[in-house]
Amino acid sequence: MESNKSSQAYPMKGGDGVSSYTNNSSYQKSLAEVVTSLIGEAIAKKLDVQNFACGHPFRIADLGCSIGPNTFIAVQNIINSVQLKYQTLRITSTPEFQAFFNDHASNDFNTLFKSLPADKQYFAAGVPGSFYTRLFPRSSFHLIYSSFALHWLSKVPDEVMERGSLAWNKGRVHYGGAKEEVVMAYKQQYERDMHEFFNARAEEVVCGGLVVVLVPGRPNEVPHSKCIGNVLFEVLSCCLLEMAKEGRIDEQTVDHLNIPIYYASPQELEEIVNQNGYFTIDRMEGLPHIAEPETKHAATRLALGIRVGVEAVFKGHLEEETIDELFDSYSKKLAQVPSAYSSGGASIMFAVFRRNNINVIKK
Amino acid sequence: MESNKSSQAYPMKGGDGVSSYTNNSSYQKSLAEVVTSLIGEAIAKKLDVQNFACGHPFRIADLGCSIGPNTFIAVQNIINSVQLKYQTLRITSTPEFQAFFNDHASNDFNTLFKSLPADKQYFAAGVPGSFYTRLFPRSSFHLIYSSFALHWLSKVPDEVMERGSLAWNKGRVHYGGAKEEVVMAYKQQYERDMHEFFNARAEEVVCGGLVVVLVPGRPNEVPHSKCIGNVLFEVLSCCLLEMAKEGRIDEQTVDHLNIPIYYASPQELEEIVNQNGYFTIDRMEGLPHIAEPETKHAATRLALGIRVGVEAVFKGHLEEETIDELFDSYSKKLAQVPSAYSSGGASIMFAVFRRNNINVIKK
Ligand SMILES: Nc1ncnc2c1ncn2[C@@H]1O[C@H](CSCC[C@H](N)C(=O)O)[C@@H](O)[C@H]1O
Ligand SMILES: Nc1ncnc2c1ncn2[C@@H]1O[C@H](CSCC[C@H](N)C(=O)O)[C@@H](O)[C@H]1O
Repeated sequence: MESNKSSQAYPMKGGDGVSSYTNNSSYQKSLAEVVTSLIGEAIAKKLDVQNFACGHPFRIADLGCSIGPNTFIAVQNIINSVQLKYQTLRITSTPEFQAFFNDHASNDFNTLFKSLPADKQYFAAGVPGSFYTRLFPRSSFHLIYSSFALHWLSKVPDEVMERGSLAWNKGRVHYGGAKEEVVMAYKQQYERDMHEFFNARAEEVVCGGLVVVLVPGRPNEVPHSKCIGNVLFEVLSCCLLEMAKEGRIDEQTVDHLNIPIYYASPQELEEIVNQNGYFTIDRMEGLPHIAEPETKHAATRLALGIRVGVEAVFKGHLEEETIDELFDSYSKKLAQVPSAYSSGGASIMFAVFRRNNINVIKK
Repeated sequence: MESNKSSQAYPMKGGDGVSSYTNNSSYQKSLAEVVTSLIGEAIAKKLDVQNFACGHPFRIADLGCSIGPNTFIAVQNIINSVQLKYQTLRITSTPEFQAFFNDHASNDFNTLFKSLPADKQYFAAGVPGSFYTRLFPRSSFHLIYSSFALHWLSKVPDEVMERGSLAWNKGRVHYGGAKEEVVMAYKQQYERDMHEFFNARAEEVVCGGLVVVLVPGRPNEVPHSKCIGNVLFEVLSCCLLEMAKEGRIDEQTVDHLNIPIYYASPQELEEIVNQNGYFTIDRMEGLPHIAEPETKHAATRLALGIRVGVEAVFKGHLEEETIDELFDSYSKKLAQVPSAYSSGGASIMFAVFRRNNINVIKK
């Protein structure tokens, strides 16, 4: 049901080596702990469990789950909160739980499956495919979660890749620092993708069910040019261009490379959700940016963090060795301009969307 | 929910190399085509779709699916038959389909997920874990299929491994050719396992839902000693013992090695199902053994086929090189005694079990 043709998959680095996702996701993890209480609150106040068919399993999905362990922590927290809710409501027959772990088919599901907690209190399933398509049958999910994944677009917007188009992104690998047309092309891709996302979830989630999202974004008042993520990619573009000038890579390679990531503001997301119409926004807020501690190794750590995230985009365009060189010079450059990541705007968006009680889905 | 401690997993060889499961399962495949019509018939005659809650997805599982492609063919055939049934009954709203692919957590799900058919008409999910435990929520499945997997026991029976026990299986790697106590220990393990299997499925399958099984077995009238599978393992034991005598492997290694496979007769399985009580046998029959064509390479092919299946049991006990030697001498020995595999008893059991209308599950 998913067509892979137009979709691009850049899964996180698998296994458990030094530069694996598992060993470079402590930031996501500490944040997930911060949001545990927020999710608990959303479930306690907004999830209408009494409306759900009793006797049926409670189904949870984590979209863009990567290979663990954060996803296991998140799913367990959700289950704890739902169980607490049943206790509070004195509903004695708590449902069985089924948790679906979704990511691209190229994600390392073998590692995910092998590290499933031995004492898990749910039936686990892995679901390969893009969350911009339908993943599950109609009206069968009660809570869908996604953390640090929805800033990934389904693909690089076409115009950005087209030599000759006004939005052609020559000499850069992201809209960070690029001209307005490039920024607009990314923004429009984000809007199209999020509509697909909410249309698909609208079919899958039962009325009264929740979609809970944690995603890096941009505070409303911060312009694209001041958003930390964009600045970081701008510095990366510079490093690549320097390597091109020194003849170590082909300049055309830089033109071809584009990172399909968009940092949306709460306001942008709000507009999309309202226009889409299937969900009500129960909560939406920016969590403060947790700055990297200013240690000697801050730049190295940050460069490695970015590398883990976007390395897959570079594979196939650049040799492994060249990628090493790139992130080496990137980490040096970041150390020279600590302001690039210690000031500027950034925020993690936390949002809770509730499926409206519309039974017929508009087309 | 699954405890891995007492369960042993020997998944088929992944990837797509010469000795991979993908490239050595044409026998299973051709047989699956033979049973397509049998499954179609079972669905047409025995599956009570009118009783299933309408508006809900139709859920299918393939237990012990390996890495494809047979499982995709099987699932698609099942869906075709169900759709045909809806058409015949003139039920216009055909359900959405969700297919769950189960195997041990050590199975190569990455390969499975990457080769999912692009035009599949169902939502796919992978489920890691032993089918001798609960895998799915209560009453949520309509048809559960398992092909060439249920002859694998959950583990080697304890007594068989215990030096000093009457059932200690010294000098052999299987009950094929072994003394009565060893055969009995295997038989009892099979009975325990099948009870676990039917207890778990009884919870998961809706009333009127089907469990369809294809499994290599032994015709009622054939004694263990004449069952082809057992003879083949007996020859394998001989090869190992010879290598031990020549000092190429340690004799104790042979004592420790045991292949947890049991070839049951239809009668044995019938007794278990009747005793278990949750399912009615709608159909049970032996399909004729399709003999290997008597080509020059028959022995080589057969040895390779067995190797693909049981190699994982030997890993960790023997070096890769020693395993190569073993199957080399095995294939030579088989060529010397073609009667070992061209005569003797064998059969593929095809069985359809229907979940009884008991709502309360006895403990
Ligand atoms: N369209 C898409 N469909 C499914 N997964 C996607 C996706 N786009 C990105 N991803 C996945 O999203 C993940 C982002 S990493 C975040 C992992 C985890 N949720 C955590 O919070 O720690 C990656 O594994 C990536 O492969
Ligand atoms: N207890 C168990 N739980 C889940 N899978 C099991 C199992 N015991 C064996 N298997 C799996 O069963 C498969 C047998 S190979 C058969 C593959 C496929 N069904 C076909 O017909 O072609 C292997 O992949 C093995 O790992």
